[in-house]
Amino acid sequence: MTKTVYVLSHPNLALVKYWGVMPKEIIGDLNIPRYPTKSSASLIADSYRTITELTVIPNGSGKLLEFCLDGKNISQGSKEWSNVEEFIRNLAIVSGLSSLYRYDYKIRSANDFPTGAGLASSASGFSALAYAFYRVIPEFQNLDERTLSIYAAQLSGSASRSIPSSGGFVVWYRGFDIYQLRNYAQLGYDRDVILKSSYAESLIPAEELDDLRIIIVTVNSAKKNISSREGMEITTRTDPLYWDWVKYEEYVLLPHLISAMRSKDYPRVWELTMKASDGLHSSMLRSYPRIVYMNDDSHKVAGLIIELNQNHGTNIAAYSFDAGPNPVIFTTQEYVQKIVGVLRDNGYDRISVSKVGKGTRQVDEKEGRRLLEYIENMKRSD
Amino acid sequence: MTKTVYVLSHPNLALVKYWGVMPKEIIGDLNIPRYPTKSSASLIADSYRTITELTVIPNGSGKLLEFCLDGKNISQGSKEWSNVEEFIRNLAIVSGLSSLYRYDYKIRSANDFPTGAGLASSASGFSALAYAFYRVIPEFQNLDERTLSIYAAQLSGSASRSIPSSGGFVVWYRGFDIYQLRNYAQLGYDRDVILKSSYAESLIPAEELDDLRIIIVTVNSAKKNISSREGMEITTRTDPLYWDWVKYEEYVLLPHLISAMRSKDYPRVWELTMKASDGLHSSMLRSYPRIVYMNDDSHKVAGLIIELNQNHGTNIAAYSFDAGPNPVIFTTQEYVQKIVGVLRDNGYDRISVSKVGKGTRQVDEKEGRRLLEYIENMKRSD
Repeated sequence: MTKTVYVLSHPNLALVKYWGVMPKEIIGDLNIPRYPTKSSASLIADSYRTITELTVIPNGSGKLLEFCLDGKNISQGSKEWSNVEEFIRNLAIVSGLSSLYRYDYKIRSANDFPTGAGLASSASGFSALAYAFYRVIPEFQNLDERTLSIYAAQLSGSASRSIPSSGGFVVWYRGFDIYQLRNYAQLGYDRDVILKSSYAESLIPAEELDDLRIIIVTVNSAKKNISSREGMEITTRTDPLYWDWVKYEEYVLLPHLISAMRSKDYPRVWELTMKASDGLHSSMLRSYPRIVYMNDDSHKVAGLIIELNQNHGTNIAAYSFDAGPNPVIFTTQEYVQKIVGVLRDNGYDRISVSKVGKGTRQVDEKEGRRLLEYIENMKRSD
Repeated sequence: MTKTVYVLSHPNLALVKYWGVMPKEIIGDLNIPRYPTKSSASLIADSYRTITELTVIPNGSGKLLEFCLDGKNISQGSKEWSNVEEFIRNLAIVSGLSSLYRYDYKIRSANDFPTGAGLASSASGFSALAYAFYRVIPEFQNLDERTLSIYAAQLSGSASRSIPSSGGFVVWYRGFDIYQLRNYAQLGYDRDVILKSSYAESLIPAEELDDLRIIIVTVNSAKKNISSREGMEITTRTDPLYWDWVKYEEYVLLPHLISAMRSKDYPRVWELTMKASDGLHSSMLRSYPRIVYMNDDSHKVAGLIIELNQNHGTNIAAYSFDAGPNPVIFTTQEYVQKIVGVLRDNGYDRISVSKVGKGTRQVDEKEGRRLLEYIENMKRSD
C-alpha cells in the first residue's frame, strides 16, 4: 500500500564545525559511508523551515520516481537527483536494510529560505528525508533517535545535527578516533558498536535557549567555490595539521564550549565559537590546493563583531563562517538591534534573524500540504 | 677617532617564513632577545638596495645622535628612532659588548624601493646596520658571518637572512627547539653554544640562481594592519597548533624544500613555497584575535598563479605572502613575461621584477655617498 508522510525540519548553524569523514582506507569495509573525523556542535535555526513529503510505493526497486524541490521538478541525472539517489543507497548500506530497495519513492520538498543565503538546505533536507523513511518504512520504525542521526548523516553530515527532536544546542559526537577505527576495522570489532559511537544529541533543549539569536548576513560573492564535500576531502587528505586540529577541538575546544553553554557563560561560548570558525578556515587555507571561502566582506563583518565585543568589554556575539562568504552571527536577544544597526551602517542590509528551535518532526497531512503549497507559491513568485 | 663606513644590503623574500621568537619564559636570562622559534628560508632580491652610512664617534655613551632615512631627518622618539635605539641595545645584550656604549652614532640610510611595496626594508636596514657595526667597532671585528647573522636578527629577525655574503638561497637555521631551550636555560647549558646554534647561511650562492626571478605585485589596501612583530607575538601565544606547525615545517617542509632547491626541482620548490605561505596565514588566522593580512586581491593573484600552474601541467611559479596583502611571485626567467602579462590582463600593473643577488657588503666611501645621494634625490622628487 502506498504511504505518504510529511516531515518538518530546520537547518542548523555550527558553533564547532564538521569538516571531514573518515577516509575509506581507515574505516575499511564497515559499510559506514560517512563517519565524521571530529565532533561538532550547532544550534537549530527555528525561522527557516524545510517541509518534505515522502511517498513510498511498494513492490518497487529502490527507484526515485519523482523529485520536486521548491516547486520545480528536478530532472533525473541532475546533481540534486543524484544526491537523493546516493542518500537512499547510503541509507541502505549503513542500515543493512535491503528492504529499502523493495519500494519506489516520490519526494516533494521545499525550503522557505533562499538557497543562496548560505544556509545548508542539505542539512534540513536530508534530516527530513531520513526522518520520513523512519516513519514510513516498517523495518526502520524501531530506530532510536541517536541511530537515526547517524543515518541522516550519510550524504550531508550536518543533517545529523538537525535530527534531535528537542533541538536547541546539539552536539554530534564523533565516536572513535582515527587510531581506534583503524585498529577496530582491522581486528573485527563489533560493527554496530562502531556505528552507534557517532550520534547527535540535544544537550540543551530549544526552550531553554529562548534568549539566543542567529543572525545571517548575505554578502555578495562573485566566486563559485568548490563544494563543502569536495573541500573536506581535500582538507582531510592534505592539511598537514588536520589531525592536530581534530585533536585540539575534540579534547580542548569542544569540552570547554559544552561546559560554557551549560553554564550559560555566553562570552566564553562566543570566544570559542569564533576560534572554532577561524580554526576551520585556517585548516582550509592550509589545504593543498588552498580552499578560501571567506572574502573581504566576510572579514569586514568579522572585524565589526570583534570591535563590538571590544567596545562592550566582553563578547556579546560571535561571527562564524561555513563553506561560503556569508557571516553567521550568534548572539543574545538583547544585542540583536545593536548588531543589526552596525551591520546596516556598514552597508550590509540583507540580514535575517532567527531564534533557536526544535529538531525534525512529523506533521499531519493537512499542515504538511498547506506548508508545501505556501512555500512553493512563495518561491514561484520570486 | 670618528669613523664612517658604508654598507650595501638587499631585502630578502621568504620561501619558508619566520614568524615568532622564543618566549622570554622559555629562553630565560640567556640574553638573546630574539631567538627564532622556527627555521626559515629566503632569496635575496638584488634589484632593491639599501645603502647605509654609519658614523661612530668615540667617547660617547651609546646615543643615537642623528638618523636620516630616505633623505628625511627622523625625530627622536619616533617609531623608527626607537627601533634603532633598541637594536643597539639588543646588540649590546646579545654580544655582551658594553663597548657599544662607549660610542655615539649617526646613521644615514636610504632604500631605493618604495616603503609601501611590502618589502621589508627592516631586513635590509638592520642587516646593513649590523654589518656596519661589525666593520667599525674594534671589538666586533673578529666576528664570523654566522654570528653576525644572529646579531643582525636582534630587532627584525629576517635581517639575519640578508647577511650571508654569497646571497642567493639563504636558510636561517632555528637552532635548538623549545623543549631543548627550556631545559638548557634551566640547567645552565653553555650560552655561547645556544646563541650560535641559530644562524643564517647561504646554501646556494646567487650566481647559481641566475635563472630565478622575484615578482612583487603591489595591490591596494585600505586596511592598516598590526605590525609583524606584534602579530607573531600573538600567534606564538594563541595559535593552539603553533608548535605543531613549527614541527611540521622544521622536520618535513624545510628539508624537502632545501633538497628540491639543491636539485633545481623548481616545480617542487614552488609547491612547498605556496604551502609554506598558506601555512603561515593559516596560523595567523587561527590566532586569537585573528590576524588577516591577505585581501580579495591577494587571493585573486594566488588563484591566477594556481591557474597558470594548472594550465602548464606543472608549477611554473609560486605565490607567497608576508605581513601584508602584496603578492610575491617566485618563478624562473622564462615565465616572467607570461606571468606579468596575466597580471596586467587582470588589472594588476604595479609590478616589479628582481633577480636573486648577493648579501650584505661594505662599499667604499665614493660609491656609498653616490648611492645615498642618488636615492635621496629620487625619494625627494617622489
